[in-house]
Amino acid sequence: MKGAHALVKTLVQLGVDVCFANPGTTEMPLVAAMDAIEGIRPVPCVFEGVCTGAADGFGRMAGRPAMVLLHLGPGLANGIANLHNARRARTPMLVVVGEHATWHRRYDPPLAMDIEALAGTFSGWQRTTARTEDILRDATEAVYKAGQDQVSTLILPYDLQLEEMPEGRADAGPPASAPVDAGMVEKAAARLRKAGRPVLVLGGRALRREGLLTAARISAATGCDLLAETFPARMERGAGLPDVPRIHYLPEMAMDQLSRYDLLIFAGAQRPVSFFGYPNVPAELVDKGSETIMLTSEGRDTGEGLEALASELKARSTATEDCLAQPASMGLPSGPLSGDKICVILAALQPEGCIVVEEAITNSLLYHPLTAGSRPFTLLTLTGGSLGQGPPCAAGAAIACPDRQVISFQADGAALYTLQALWTQARERLNVITLICSNRSYDILRLELARLGVFQPGPSASRLTDLSGVDWVRAGEGMGVPSVSVRTAEDLAREFSQALDEKGPRLIEMVL
Amino acid sequence: MKGAHALVKTLVQLGVDVCFANPGTTEMPLVAAMDAIEGIRPVPCVFEGVCTGAADGFGRMAGRPAMVLLHLGPGLANGIANLHNARRARTPMLVVVGEHATWHRRYDPPLAMDIEALAGTFSGWQRTTARTEDILRDATEAVYKAGQDQVSTLILPYDLQLEEMPEGRADAGPPASAPVDAGMVEKAAARLRKAGRPVLVLGGRALRREGLLTAARISAATGCDLLAETFPARMERGAGLPDVPRIHYLPEMAMDQLSRYDLLIFAGAQRPVSFFGYPNVPAELVDKGSETIMLTSEGRDTGEGLEALASELKARSTATEDCLAQPASMGLPSGPLSGDKICVILAALQPEGCIVVEEAITNSLLYHPLTAGSRPFTLLTLTGGSLGQGPPCAAGAAIACPDRQVISFQADGAALYTLQALWTQARERLNVITLICSNRSYDILRLELARLGVFQPGPSASRLTDLSGVDWVRAGEGMGVPSVSVRTAEDLAREFSQALDEKGPRLIEMVL
Repeated sequence: MKGAHALVKTLVQLGVDVCFANPGTTEMPLVAAMDAIEGIRPVPCVFEGVCTGAADGFGRMAGRPAMVLLHLGPGLANGIANLHNARRARTPMLVVVGEHATWHRRYDPPLAMDIEALAGTFSGWQRTTARTEDILRDATEAVYKAGQDQVSTLILPYDLQLEEMPEGRADAGPPASAPVDAGMVEKAAARLRKAGRPVLVLGGRALRREGLLTAARISAATGCDLLAETFPARMERGAGLPDVPRIHYLPEMAMDQLSRYDLLIFAGAQRPVSFFGYPNVPAELVDKGSETIMLTSEGRDTGEGLEALASELKARSTATEDCLAQPASMGLPSGPLSGDKICVILAALQPEGCIVVEEAITNSLLYHPLTAGSRPFTLLTLTGGSLGQGPPCAAGAAIACPDRQVISFQADGAALYTLQALWTQARERLNVITLICSNRSYDILRLELARLGVFQPGPSASRLTDLSGVDWVRAGEGMGVPSVSVRTAEDLAREFSQALDEKGPRLIEMVL
Repeated sequence: MKGAHALVKTLVQLGVDVCFANPGTTEMPLVAAMDAIEGIRPVPCVFEGVCTGAADGFGRMAGRPAMVLLHLGPGLANGIANLHNARRARTPMLVVVGEHATWHRRYDPPLAMDIEALAGTFSGWQRTTARTEDILRDATEAVYKAGQDQVSTLILPYDLQLEEMPEGRADAGPPASAPVDAGMVEKAAARLRKAGRPVLVLGGRALRREGLLTAARISAATGCDLLAETFPARMERGAGLPDVPRIHYLPEMAMDQLSRYDLLIFAGAQRPVSFFGYPNVPAELVDKGSETIMLTSEGRDTGEGLEALASELKARSTATEDCLAQPASMGLPSGPLSGDKICVILAALQPEGCIVVEEAITNSLLYHPLTAGSRPFTLLTLTGGSLGQGPPCAAGAAIACPDRQVISFQADGAALYTLQALWTQARERLNVITLICSNRSYDILRLELARLGVFQPGPSASRLTDLSGVDWVRAGEGMGVPSVSVRTAEDLAREFSQALDEKGPRLIEMVL
């Protein structure tokens, strides 16, 4: 059996069944192997940032790694921005990069790059396979390590893919989970009982349904508030779940929000720091006088840690209705569109069980508060701050959950980074509705200029924050996605409702 | 004076006058400084691969570095693929990357990455400025090093951009040039006089007008053939210049081509190696029995080295007419389009002094041979094999040479990587005509599959090489570029001629 076939067979055995791919010459044996050995669905992407962003969306929803197949150093480089987001999201993912033949690298052919250095910037685990007989071991370890909620990168030289090797069988075993720290649970419970103004800060797996309901029980038992990390990889939300506000993005607002508390217990979340380091603004957003306790790591122990805390606190075994958000109905706005009106319309009309990928930046401020009583849904956000995550993430989520409606709530500036994801959405006929907030501007940067005292940007700053000139209807249709443009709340509600009734991808440009 | 202002002022003093930018929060002080200090034209690009590809095109044509302004690690990562091409092209370029505030990095905020590791994969020189008072020194050194035909990367933390610093004046001095090796020149001349079948292989600056004419004199004096490296960064071509074929891309063809020679003298070119390492195909394409002489490095000594060789050979002081290609007129083809017909039409109609950026991959095989007698033009090719170089490179070349027509001869698969470059072409009203070879397929990969014995690709291989579904007219118009689609040679000739008569960007989809 050839090395490429052995790799594909091993991955299939380990449960890898989707591959987001943009291969080149050095990956052709793997492409051929996917035809010889069944079990992996290849999803073509044009531009590698789409592959990696889609695998991020897939991993967040499926809870297991998709494979990404990339071409040499440049192909991997194009995928790094969304691999960075995936790293911050703790998404399980397996990246396979073809490399020049082992004997060819020394000639420094034109496409040669330091692939290992690139991989080192985002990988939780990485290896360049040295011999064909190592493929089975390396693939097994790669999938196992990816299962620990991180990116594994396997670099596989071309000649090893073509060499013959003996067959074998892979078994990765279950991923290790950090044990719950019983002493920390006791300490947290004791402090919670005494604290005047405590808050439980949830992140990672604590934001899944089970974690949220456990947190609601803890809140009911102790009176503590609940907060979510600023940019959750995946958060369940809506009626029937506790209403958990997110920590604000702007550091001044976050500090104000957090300053109310004298005790902060973190479950699956990191201690919050300012997104950027501004003069005269502290990096650490938690007041120095407040006590902080890290209840669990960010790993798979989060759910058990929360459950142990609830048990220690003798919280009721189920969350009572009064801790949970009730279904809310909202009137629909009318007239010219604004960011706030878009948020209302989306929160009001989004269907039960939908997945909302939110990369709307300045136009989504109201969306989270408005959705406490929405039909239950899953929220995926931009974890690493690297723009262009939304459109591919939506594609990957739709492939992981073909029966759920995916809504890509998207800023125009960010969407331009990876608009090629629309092509994959069209090609695979994915149920993704893309809502583009078209304000034709990097508004977030105008805010940053104001922070520097530049309230009237000069010609250079104006040119560099002005995004006018994109026709999103044509751009969407160019990629094969039926597209319309709306300017009023009424038109948006109508077009969005209609898109929800149909299958396949749609794009709605919302002109602001 | 603030650090950001000092940097911009220094760069202006050193002759940097264009900045291809996709800035974020950590670069806002530099953006504001470009308004306070005149002299740098900011060119907005949506997606960083456009910034770096455009700076590559600019550098190749202007012969001096453009500035690229990128946002943190993810922004730099998005630019790496075209930085790799620029490194292989030996293009002067200055990359400035904003970094988190020096005191903020230790908190590992969401956007933090190992920027230095990323920069190490393509930079000839790189530095992270440590103190505001070092900005002047670091900027000067960065520009000086970029002037040595390489990429300089300056990583500048946010807080240093905002700190006050004393004014100063920068002076980078002229770039160093490697001296010509007189002994090597004598040796080359002696061997050339005795060799039976010699060839002079030209690369880098030897492919500029002066180098080509000197090579023609050497050829006339010794009877040696002339060849060009496979993927020139910049090559002058057409009537009045010697007809210099390029070394073939496919290794088997290149070996056959080179096996005719018993002596190969390299001027500004590297010893050719196979692009990929295939089983049973040697990496080194030159026959082991042939003698090779490296006349010059790939640096700025190439022109002098060639001139010294011509002098040593007592070659005539000017190239005679019979060594130079005569103007050729070609009849225009008719009927349904093919790659070959496109090459004929382009070679026949391209105007004098135009710049042709060629990333047409499988459809441009005939273009180079056909252009020996075309109106004189400049050819820019894909040096590093990293796709998506053409559209941004064309934009940058047009900014460097606003009075010259730029023609972007482009494969559809490759164009999809950086179609956002069309937006910059529209925004800046650049004289770029994009000719898209729309075969809706990664044909080069089908060739590679055939090499593996896969002549009938299975469903996976078919899906991963099929690019159907892109509507290039809508995609182009979506980015603001007037676009048409043609299917016949007559229509292409008409639309291309009309586009040449107009100003501003145009896109012609050529359906194959």
